[in-house]
Amino acid sequence: MYVILVYDIGEKRVGKMLKLCRKYLNWIQNSVFEGEITEVKLKELEFKAREIMDQEVDSLIIFNTRNEKWLDKRIIGKEKNELDTFL
Amino acid sequence: MYVILVYDIGEKRVGKMLKLCRKYLNWIQNSVFEGEITEVKLKELEFKAREIMDQEVDSLIIFNTRNEKWLDKRIIGKEKNELDTFL
Repeated sequence: MYVILVYDIGEKRVGKMLKLCRKYLNWIQNSVFEGEITEVKLKELEFKAREIMDQEVDSLIIFNTRNEKWLDKRIIGKEKNELDTFL
Repeated sequence: MYVILVYDIGEKRVGKMLKLCRKYLNWIQNSVFEGEITEVKLKELEFKAREIMDQEVDSLIIFNTRNEKWLDKRIIGKEKNELDTFL
């Protein structure tokens, strides 16, 4: 399936979360990731994310669609993707 | 159409951007919005967003799908939506 993941995570935990999400998905903006992922891998990602998160204050939203072609994406302004290669 | 909008905007401009996006869409997380919107209204929103943005540093990503039912959403942790009524 195709996934868009966005998080809003406390500063202390954000580094860990970024590292985790980048293992599974493509980083496209500050706290936004997307990519093709299997259900099993997504469950794994969710499980690990819950371990990092403080669920009282942090938030993680996952949108998913069975087919990427049902979703159209446009980027206005700066594309952050280039950062991905440096970190 | 159904839209997910995420932005990454410099601190000085983020207040204006938030205010703009909330006129057109539902605020679901720090810098994430979603909602049903017409093509005309989306163009209007984009036009106004470009006026606010510094396109050298700011970034706006718009995902859209023709039908909301093609997209599934899950929220883990804190739902930020409640804030919406206070601001």
